[in-house]
Amino acid sequence: MTETSEHPVLAIDIGGTKVALAIVVSGQVTHRVQIATPRSGRGTDIVEAIAGQATLLPRTTAAGVATTGIVDHGHLTALNPATLPIEDRFPLVEALGQRLSRPILAINDAQAAAWAEYCIGAGQGAARMIFVTVSTGIGAGLVLDGRLQSGARGLAGHVGHMVSDAAGPTCGCGRRGCVERVASGSAVGMLATEMLGRPVAAPEVFAAAEAGDERCANLLDRASAALANTLCDLVASLDLDRIVLGGGVGLAEGFLQRVKMSMETLPAVYRRPIVKAGTGADAGLLGVAALVNGGNFH
Amino acid sequence: MTETSEHPVLAIDIGGTKVALAIVVSGQVTHRVQIATPRSGRGTDIVEAIAGQATLLPRTTAAGVATTGIVDHGHLTALNPATLPIEDRFPLVEALGQRLSRPILAINDAQAAAWAEYCIGAGQGAARMIFVTVSTGIGAGLVLDGRLQSGARGLAGHVGHMVSDAAGPTCGCGRRGCVERVASGSAVGMLATEMLGRPVAAPEVFAAAEAGDERCANLLDRASAALANTLCDLVASLDLDRIVLGGGVGLAEGFLQRVKMSMETLPAVYRRPIVKAGTGADAGLLGVAALVNGGNFH
Repeated sequence: MTETSEHPVLAIDIGGTKVALAIVVSGQVTHRVQIATPRSGRGTDIVEAIAGQATLLPRTTAAGVATTGIVDHGHLTALNPATLPIEDRFPLVEALGQRLSRPILAINDAQAAAWAEYCIGAGQGAARMIFVTVSTGIGAGLVLDGRLQSGARGLAGHVGHMVSDAAGPTCGCGRRGCVERVASGSAVGMLATEMLGRPVAAPEVFAAAEAGDERCANLLDRASAALANTLCDLVASLDLDRIVLGGGVGLAEGFLQRVKMSMETLPAVYRRPIVKAGTGADAGLLGVAALVNGGNFH
Repeated sequence: MTETSEHPVLAIDIGGTKVALAIVVSGQVTHRVQIATPRSGRGTDIVEAIAGQATLLPRTTAAGVATTGIVDHGHLTALNPATLPIEDRFPLVEALGQRLSRPILAINDAQAAAWAEYCIGAGQGAARMIFVTVSTGIGAGLVLDGRLQSGARGLAGHVGHMVSDAAGPTCGCGRRGCVERVASGSAVGMLATEMLGRPVAAPEVFAAAEAGDERCANLLDRASAALANTLCDLVASLDLDRIVLGGGVGLAEGFLQRVKMSMETLPAVYRRPIVKAGTGADAGLLGVAALVNGGNFH
């Protein structure tokens, strides 16, 4: 386990809808600002917006950015361009480093959040853990024996693009039947929209299931069963000790319980404890700040 | 990378059909004996058979055993009892250690073979690699950043039991549609037997496909496509750098080429080089010998 910061860190979280900036000291956010993500398709617009917000915060010597998409040697590519419109291989570390006059550590946001859960959240003490965030999409980060898994191209943890149904619909990434297309918030909304013949978003599906609507309950059962199967695939291949579930859908009423119940139908050797994430909406900020101060990642 | 042995090691490989014993010195087999696996269902019969053979070999101070099944804190359990009939949680390390009067290191055979491929075979120089053996079943071992992945329960690498088709046939492990039930040698034989209405084994299917039989070629295409999809799931979740393919089916004429061609139909971000294994039938023996002399596993 890695010590969290003593020196203040400027932590930045780039998502598809918002960009958050925070000063993190010893695992705590002391200052925080947030703006809507510039969706012009140009990385420099995102960098300029960040630089503008950074002037509102105390100056630090160290900075890190957690971002949706794949970070490959400091270059950012959106695996699903609908989530974050940006040029392929945008040189995020170089552009942001020049604009902020600081060295920048950049990492995928779910990887950063996994590190936060491992260091100060619900993953503490688990030798081999996965953090899975189920919201608009499905992201994840793996920490194996104290090492955050990133990979030479930054792809590690993209379990939302493991195949759940090889005959399923084509995903934004180009594969067919990714679990993200079946079990994410946007997938639940899309499937419910088809089923009910009118535009429906995930929160309404959860509310209806909670109120006793059987069709909506079945739809959520199918989504959580698909996710449970993918998680058991990861247990079979990695012998994980614990699964930490987060995100708007992951933490929605009844979802974790549904995933647990699906897992109970599978052989015992593939089952593992599933717990709720503990670090909340700032997980990405806290995780990248901890990494800047000496995380162990590969 | 770990140095291979200077001290001679007694290496033992327990498979479903044969048990091999060898003396390994500096990555080379110097003596070797082999017997049929006692299939009485009693672990002590296997231990006795090994002890009998060990007397035919020079005495060593160190010994290791690579075995089919799951090795959990020195206890052996067959994930698929049809492969190796043995009591659940047979205390292999204790029983063999007492009988051979030596401390025993025990590990899953595919994990051991992966370590051999990483140290002296086709995985050399790959930071993040998987060795996959496709034979009667499908086994695998993962080496991530120089660490062989075993897990607290020894389950890591059991990628043959990742789900390929959630509506598929039930596997010996209890899950439905494991890739082992679609892409292994026994699966190919079973599917061909159904298709042709007479008993057929995998080698005949390969020979027929090679000779131009379209139905057999299609069957092999489906098997290799299922395996390619599972491998891409592992690339998405682990950002592997290289895939090393071994085993009787994995090395059979045209199979690797079929897997490569299936992978080519998937998005580029999930593709990785696939190469043939280099250490041959003694991979398990060589791998466990290397581990006895200081491997890095978790």
